Amino acid sequence: MVADPGDPRLDDFRDLSRADRRPDRPGGRGLVIAEGTVVVRRLLDSAYPVRAVLGVGRRLDELADVLAGRDVPVWEVDADLMARVVGFHLNRGVLAAADRVPFPAVAELAAGARSLAVLEGVGDHENLGALFRNAAALGADAVVLGPGCSDPLYRRSVRVSMGWVLRVPFAPWDGPVADLLELLRGTGWTVAALTPAASARPLSVLDQRRPDRVAVVLGAEGPGLTAAALAAADLQVRIPMTPGVDSLNVATAGAVAFAALWAPRAAAGAGPDGPDGADAH
Amino acid sequence: MVADPGDPRLDDFRDLSRADRRPDRPGGRGLVIAEGTVVVRRLLDSAYPVRAVLGVGRRLDELADVLAGRDVPVWEVDADLMARVVGFHLNRGVLAAADRVPFPAVAELAAGARSLAVLEGVGDHENLGALFRNAAALGADAVVLGPGCSDPLYRRSVRVSMGWVLRVPFAPWDGPVADLLELLRGTGWTVAALTPAASARPLSVLDQRRPDRVAVVLGAEGPGLTAAALAAADLQVRIPMTPGVDSLNVATAGAVAFAALWAPRAAAGAGPDGPDGADAH
Repeated sequence: MVADPGDPRLDDFRDLSRADRRPDRPGGRGLVIAEGTVVVRRLLDSAYPVRAVLGVGRRLDELADVLAGRDVPVWEVDADLMARVVGFHLNRGVLAAADRVPFPAVAELAAGARSLAVLEGVGDHENLGALFRNAAALGADAVVLGPGCSDPLYRRSVRVSMGWVLRVPFAPWDGPVADLLELLRGTGWTVAALTPAASARPLSVLDQRRPDRVAVVLGAEGPGLTAAALAAADLQVRIPMTPGVDSLNVATAGAVAFAALWAPRAAAGAGPDGPDGADAH
Repeated sequence: MVADPGDPRLDDFRDLSRADRRPDRPGGRGLVIAEGTVVVRRLLDSAYPVRAVLGVGRRLDELADVLAGRDVPVWEVDADLMARVVGFHLNRGVLAAADRVPFPAVAELAAGARSLAVLEGVGDHENLGALFRNAAALGADAVVLGPGCSDPLYRRSVRVSMGWVLRVPFAPWDGPVADLLELLRGTGWTVAALTPAASARPLSVLDQRRPDRVAVVLGAEGPGLTAAALAAADLQVRIPMTPGVDSLNVATAGAVAFAALWAPRAAAGAGPDGPDGADAH
């Protein structure tokens, strides 16, 4: 039981509401923080090297099976001390901190995948987290983050993803998305850009084609995809919507597209890693 | 220009962060509050009697076309005074308040609809708002709110719905959801309960049947539908998901189901109210 809120062993968890929105900035620690037993389990079961776990007794007990025999420091505290360290009251009662790991190269990611979500300008952490949750559930093997996307390992994004951002492989693409789409098309991918434009073809157009490897490209709500990204795709597809309704949330649009294209395959357990699909990554 | 933050003409907009989570409680005002130009437009274009509009000059200018010639008081204020009245800084810069209207009877709602979303225990205001946005976009003609659902006209729900909760018809159902499902089945509806249970049939089972009128029943994340609701449905359907991934957000699951069942019809403009579908309500 740690009783001193100033204890340096708790530094990874200090002042979380202000820390590390921008790990690339001076002073940014860039740690991956998991909140709650579900997400902490997913972190412990991921490739990220866990540095420490902090929690109240009851939550640590719930994690006893996954903490047993692991070489990870576990700090038990009471709820008040936890709130003082973290900077807010955390009703999930348990946190884990991990180091980041290097990103895979985009080409490597694509080579190992049959379904890909490519994001451009998705800056909202919650939308990004929700997209990863939907990618995991609905059969996207990997995610590529184009320019303008936020850090998917930011705490809020990890939480909204239910921890799936820690499991679905992803990599950033720093150049224009159009260049990536050219690269994918050159290596056998069918690239479908999602847009609400009336000129786009309904998503079901892909049912007939049934291409082997499909990349779905999603842009930010509001502006949508850049003209260059739209132009670089094989085809522009839209989700059929009630006339007069402008659009869906980007993560929701992703879910509808992923479900239409990939969910049956995901359920059949035919992902690249065998029966566990995205869960096996 | 109103310059006194205590001006009683602004009372509808006072202290919004604390007011009216529970309009049924003593002191609850039960007003419908719209935030931002998009949602205020939707409120002005709805059946709810608008009481007043409050905003900064720039936002009121953007609404000039819909405010012109209407008998609605418009209070122009500066951003500081607006923040003092409302209780927080509102970067959307404009609000409108309206009175509630009586709910339609559920039987009447069902009689005028061909597609129905029935919710049980959806207590989260954001999920509820997102469900209405998805219902509007993806072809649910109406929504029925069973026991345990929150108030969809609470401010946060209205905002997340992008104002569509003001347009998609809905009604509460106070009795057990199972009773409603019996009623629907007795009047020609096919009732499909959505569940992640492995024993449920994939959503695509309805592609073959193509029933005329389908009600989709959705329960809260976590507990899901009650056993009684599941048992009262014609069939239990699931969204095919990657094995090992537990579930989707309830509003996202709704979107995937609505899109699979109704979106093509919505796009064809064949809703009960003609080419505008949900938009015409």
